[in-house]
Amino acid sequence: MSREYGRMPMDLDLLLRKARLSDGRRVVIGIADGRIALIEEEGAPVPPARESLDLANAVVLPGFTDGHLHLDKTLLGLPWRPHDAAPSVRARIEAEKAFRRGECSTLAERGAEKLLELALRHGTTSLRTHVDIDDVTRLDYLAQVLEIRERWRGRVDIQIVAFPQSGILSCPPVADLLEEALRMGADLVGGLDPLGHDGDLHAPLDVVFGLAERHGRGIDIHLHDGGEAGLSEIMEIAHRTKVTGLGGTVTISHAFALADADARAFDAVAGLLREAGVAILSSIPGGDRCPPLLRLREAGVSVFFGSDNVRDCWNPASVVGMADRTMLATYRFGLRTDADIAGLIDHVTRIPHAVTGLGPGTLAPGAPADLLAFDVETVPQIVVERRLPTLVMKGGVRQV
Amino acid sequence: MSREYGRMPMDLDLLLRKARLSDGRRVVIGIADGRIALIEEEGAPVPPARESLDLANAVVLPGFTDGHLHLDKTLLGLPWRPHDAAPSVRARIEAEKAFRRGECSTLAERGAEKLLELALRHGTTSLRTHVDIDDVTRLDYLAQVLEIRERWRGRVDIQIVAFPQSGILSCPPVADLLEEALRMGADLVGGLDPLGHDGDLHAPLDVVFGLAERHGRGIDIHLHDGGEAGLSEIMEIAHRTKVTGLGGTVTISHAFALADADARAFDAVAGLLREAGVAILSSIPGGDRCPPLLRLREAGVSVFFGSDNVRDCWNPASVVGMADRTMLATYRFGLRTDADIAGLIDHVTRIPHAVTGLGPGTLAPGAPADLLAFDVETVPQIVVERRLPTLVMKGGVRQV
Repeated sequence: MSREYGRMPMDLDLLLRKARLSDGRRVVIGIADGRIALIEEEGAPVPPARESLDLANAVVLPGFTDGHLHLDKTLLGLPWRPHDAAPSVRARIEAEKAFRRGECSTLAERGAEKLLELALRHGTTSLRTHVDIDDVTRLDYLAQVLEIRERWRGRVDIQIVAFPQSGILSCPPVADLLEEALRMGADLVGGLDPLGHDGDLHAPLDVVFGLAERHGRGIDIHLHDGGEAGLSEIMEIAHRTKVTGLGGTVTISHAFALADADARAFDAVAGLLREAGVAILSSIPGGDRCPPLLRLREAGVSVFFGSDNVRDCWNPASVVGMADRTMLATYRFGLRTDADIAGLIDHVTRIPHAVTGLGPGTLAPGAPADLLAFDVETVPQIVVERRLPTLVMKGGVRQV
Repeated sequence: MSREYGRMPMDLDLLLRKARLSDGRRVVIGIADGRIALIEEEGAPVPPARESLDLANAVVLPGFTDGHLHLDKTLLGLPWRPHDAAPSVRARIEAEKAFRRGECSTLAERGAEKLLELALRHGTTSLRTHVDIDDVTRLDYLAQVLEIRERWRGRVDIQIVAFPQSGILSCPPVADLLEEALRMGADLVGGLDPLGHDGDLHAPLDVVFGLAERHGRGIDIHLHDGGEAGLSEIMEIAHRTKVTGLGGTVTISHAFALADADARAFDAVAGLLREAGVAILSSIPGGDRCPPLLRLREAGVSVFFGSDNVRDCWNPASVVGMADRTMLATYRFGLRTDADIAGLIDHVTRIPHAVTGLGPGTLAPGAPADLLAFDVETVPQIVVERRLPTLVMKGGVRQV
């Protein structure tokens, strides 16, 4: 979904002076109508602007995209709740549903907007959220997240995946609810472990791909299944993506099975993912089930990062923000050179833009003026020090 | 080296009111002569004090101990320096020496005290630092760190390991320099991969254990060697610790080989470590070479945490502070229950106190009033949110 940006008219609303780009160039950035109108070397003649802001040599990056959140799950707004730590995915799903049956607070009260505030403060100007659709929540959470999206329009761009958290076959109303969700305004069709949860490789994918084709939508499927089962699911999703021509719009989230593949299986699966145009979303989990980021990258597979759970029934972890996520990637994969560390920024800007259409992806004339300024010497410092931006701008309007 | 604390006289300098302990009890903490004089339930009668401070229900913990820093390596005070990323331990040692030959700044200018400021702000009131002793630095860095320790007396307690970063056999002046270092004021004898670096399992350990016995000091040996070599080194160190009766004063830092051991080898090695009283220091590295914390704990081995490299020639990573380190442990080992998460605080308080004598280890009458207050509901929040303390007190004096 990537766009090429073009040149813009020259009636400037704002000039950002004394900015530095990630390659070290000192520039002036002009903004008009919420978009970047020009980026010129410092000292070059620029048209006048209504306002100007001196960035004092801050490094400017495009706004970050968080590729995987659950705005409807977070409990950041409620008093601390000890974690149940159910032992399996299925048990966690049931524990969450039990909690929800007894909880009448709104998603905003539970912390959905607190999470958005936190994300924005960390430089997230666009995100993809999954929203649970099952026999308990039905379309209620989706309706709430759609309202929240409206309230946040112009501050954070929100893309919504209709997510069958309780499965499709094993939770009969869900197939119909997913279709209704797309009509209500969900952007993508979600999915969940066809084999591990629904016990059938094909039938759940028939529903997911059928909906995507009928409604012209993208797909983002949660895959926790490991080993052979997980790998066969990944192969099947890639195969269906090729057959349906949905390449470039399909994401597999988590894909833990990639960590289990031996070298030959990995090469086969990675080759198929690249060829089919299926992207991988990873929260860079800390344990032994982290998809091998560097090998996926070498194989030409698009990988982008997301926060996943933030203090919810699944996990009390509370790391928000994509600089933090890139730091975890340096930590998890032992990355130490400036090039390796700075290169991780691609996974929260350029790559998610190409896959999801979210975010400006880059700083260029014509791109939305969603940008961040960091008071650092150099980009790797943003990562290793998990810096907060000193300026967050969305559509040319300062948010932080 | 753990101490049992006793009751104190009742002429109070300070009362901390409205404090909460980690178990949730609401208490008043009285401080006299730099030590905790009393901890009483809220509402109980307490003697008057010269000053009092309302902690507004903050959770109070003992000051954290960072078990492994390199105050002489950090370059936090210099402009960002792209990382060389030499491919082996030996190459990194040489790269660091090359840098040092061309650099005439003092350790303070390079950032040693900036690192101390950062550590203190994160709640580190005591730490163990290794100081390089080799043919380039000789005793110069030790002299500087001894001066820094004096300047920081009363703010952060600093324990110094005389560290043969270039080996002992392979760097001839070092054995004598280590002995001189102990006379100058270094507290412990360090060591480095006997097999991997000096090519001899026994001769370097003869020097290290010989110095420790002659001078009545503890030992802290860096072991990066993996596989069989690393395991044989661990066994040999444990064996020598038993023979010399140095149990309780010997630490192996990093001990990556523990991640390589199969179940039988692991059980044998862990049993020997426990029996000999040899502790393991880990920075909880993110890759595949992280010693298995939970299994070591189950086996009764003392494990404590340290930051290790902070933006230096070895690693640009800049995670400082022990709450951050416990967060990395939850991430690395997938810990999710409140008990598991809160239990990690032991690895930066109680356990390092027992092994090194640093820090109060606990909050109890008679213990040094090195304490931290956190504005949270509950201890796990400190970990998962990597909270900064809102109050840092050392010897009864507020530092932050």
